[in-house]
Amino acid sequence: MQNFDYMTPTRLIFGKGAVEKLPDAIRPYGKRVLLAYGGGSIKKSGLYDKVKVLLADCEIVELPGIHPNPKYDPSVLEGVRLCKEKKIDIVLAVGGGSVLDCCKAIAAGAKYDGDVWDLVTGEKPTLDALPVADILTLAATGSEFDGFAVISRTDTNDKIGYFSEKVYPAFSILDPKLTFTVSKRQTAAGCADAMNHVMEQYFTGDTTLLNDGICESMLRSLMANARACLANPEDYRARAEMMLACTYGCNGILALGNAYSGWPCHAMEHALSAYYDITHGEGLAIITPPWMRHILSDKTLPRFVKYGVNIFGIDATLPPREIAEKAIRATHDFFVSIGIPMTLRAVGIDESRIDEMAHHVAETGGLEDAWVPLAESDIAAIFRASL
Amino acid sequence: MQNFDYMTPTRLIFGKGAVEKLPDAIRPYGKRVLLAYGGGSIKKSGLYDKVKVLLADCEIVELPGIHPNPKYDPSVLEGVRLCKEKKIDIVLAVGGGSVLDCCKAIAAGAKYDGDVWDLVTGEKPTLDALPVADILTLAATGSEFDGFAVISRTDTNDKIGYFSEKVYPAFSILDPKLTFTVSKRQTAAGCADAMNHVMEQYFTGDTTLLNDGICESMLRSLMANARACLANPEDYRARAEMMLACTYGCNGILALGNAYSGWPCHAMEHALSAYYDITHGEGLAIITPPWMRHILSDKTLPRFVKYGVNIFGIDATLPPREIAEKAIRATHDFFVSIGIPMTLRAVGIDESRIDEMAHHVAETGGLEDAWVPLAESDIAAIFRASL
Repeated sequence: MQNFDYMTPTRLIFGKGAVEKLPDAIRPYGKRVLLAYGGGSIKKSGLYDKVKVLLADCEIVELPGIHPNPKYDPSVLEGVRLCKEKKIDIVLAVGGGSVLDCCKAIAAGAKYDGDVWDLVTGEKPTLDALPVADILTLAATGSEFDGFAVISRTDTNDKIGYFSEKVYPAFSILDPKLTFTVSKRQTAAGCADAMNHVMEQYFTGDTTLLNDGICESMLRSLMANARACLANPEDYRARAEMMLACTYGCNGILALGNAYSGWPCHAMEHALSAYYDITHGEGLAIITPPWMRHILSDKTLPRFVKYGVNIFGIDATLPPREIAEKAIRATHDFFVSIGIPMTLRAVGIDESRIDEMAHHVAETGGLEDAWVPLAESDIAAIFRASL
Repeated sequence: MQNFDYMTPTRLIFGKGAVEKLPDAIRPYGKRVLLAYGGGSIKKSGLYDKVKVLLADCEIVELPGIHPNPKYDPSVLEGVRLCKEKKIDIVLAVGGGSVLDCCKAIAAGAKYDGDVWDLVTGEKPTLDALPVADILTLAATGSEFDGFAVISRTDTNDKIGYFSEKVYPAFSILDPKLTFTVSKRQTAAGCADAMNHVMEQYFTGDTTLLNDGICESMLRSLMANARACLANPEDYRARAEMMLACTYGCNGILALGNAYSGWPCHAMEHALSAYYDITHGEGLAIITPPWMRHILSDKTLPRFVKYGVNIFGIDATLPPREIAEKAIRATHDFFVSIGIPMTLRAVGIDESRIDEMAHHVAETGGLEDAWVPLAESDIAAIFRASL
């Protein structure tokens, strides 16, 4: 078991009507609020109007139009500028993980004199940040319960994972009903994203009985509840369990003490969505089975056997190789069953930039230290097998 | 799924050599430290000397002699007096859950003008507290990762669970090696305590696939690792997994959104250890199987079946009643196997005060609202069946 240093100070306000608690939750942080959101779905759903009413006592500055795979330019830069100019007290993200990630970078940039990109890249330490909070409308990234943000920069094709203890949300308001209107495609992508967060912690060395059990419970829960959400988008129990499970994805609580896996699928997918702006969860789902096939070996076999038996109920008396291959096939088939387009071509990616992307990942992804180290040629092979 | 409002801001510093991080961890909180500990085992082990060296820059005031089932008088009162008189900045517990619980009450009392008992009983709200932190030497209570404290008052036979958001530890230093010297008896009692924390969250209504899976993983991990710790007290992996599993016991993370069970075994055991000062974990283990038998009914049967199949691997094709009865027997047998004296008589409790204790629990325990409501007569029956 590895040493670790863990903290997640975020308050989770969860359940039906949780949004009503916004005024009480935000009060300790001040009255000047940067209200950030995405493409306007919160206006259609009525959430925008509700938040405005709940924050009637506050001075609100708006930052609309934050895109999926949120961008350094213009969203982060514009948010930082607004925070400084309007002397913002707290940044409130209303939306999914992309809006929240963007707000985390904004909150850090607002307390930094230089270019916020210095903080995102880790070139400079994040010494302070405005408080950031969120009302979540999508179950997927786990950003609502961690100190991570993923920020993209179009001019350099960088998609960088940023972490700071200073940007854990002060509070996250999670009302599962707000996810009733999430499309089937985004529901499936959210499930795939969260499942991959678990896999990145499960497929590694030095695991424990406890962590394996927690990760396996997560995977079974995510799969069962994704199916239920797709069958009935207004199934409260399924949406609620899905939302909570996704929340646990990235703050480490699923596998404290496990060896660090290198998060290989994320490193590879970040290149795909940096170059092609695809949906992160779909990119992850597409490359997962080819990655699994690529790393299957005598060393990794026992993990795949455990995964196959405990997640898919594969007969434990079969030969181990057969269990592992069935498990990888079942993973692929599950993603197909929830409607994910399971090839890169289906999401608009062809062969043309694979070597360039593989080179980019090899240079920046740190996968030579992964649980199963991946060289540039491995990464290119996994991308090609995903076409 | 129930609404909830969850937060655990505590930083966990975990692993081999974690104690070395004490100076860095404590620095932000100040230099005047109340160093609280128990009966002197930390002097024998050398931990006391190590802490003194690590805190060479600090002004240390000592509060030794805190007992298991920590007492309002003298420990809490004395600690509060010292904090006020010496203008303490932070309360540092070095020991097990009892020392830490005592320190939480002290930290709250230090910032309160009246009698700290008002805060413990909840008669007055805890508006502020000194920061409290710990170096844990026993895997059991989970106090290192929650805002609870259990404080006993000898003159009234009260043993009260106190909660405040203000007394979450600022940090908890968890070095599994510090538990190598824990006796077999205390190791087993710690395991039983943590297992019961899980059961109090598992045996309830409105559970989820995710929470059930996490709770079941906890129980399997605790049982396997308790056996390994007893077989080899210096098995680092087993001590480490045990320590982490115990840490998750009480802050709610195992079962967010489950209905509240009423924590019936704790309510009953608190009377036993208030009247007889027995070891909490042993008291819990002793009453668990009789409580299970008492509440087994058509309503509760499916839970016991799930428990029996998933924890003890009982054949799922047997008749449900048979599975449940085997599961309860297996629970009893497991506690016997780790050396817990499994009758009240074996820990010095006879029939004489059972009715008085049952009356006390019925008056103060709130068990009429438990998952399976327990009246005074039920409580007395469970105590008698535990003799």
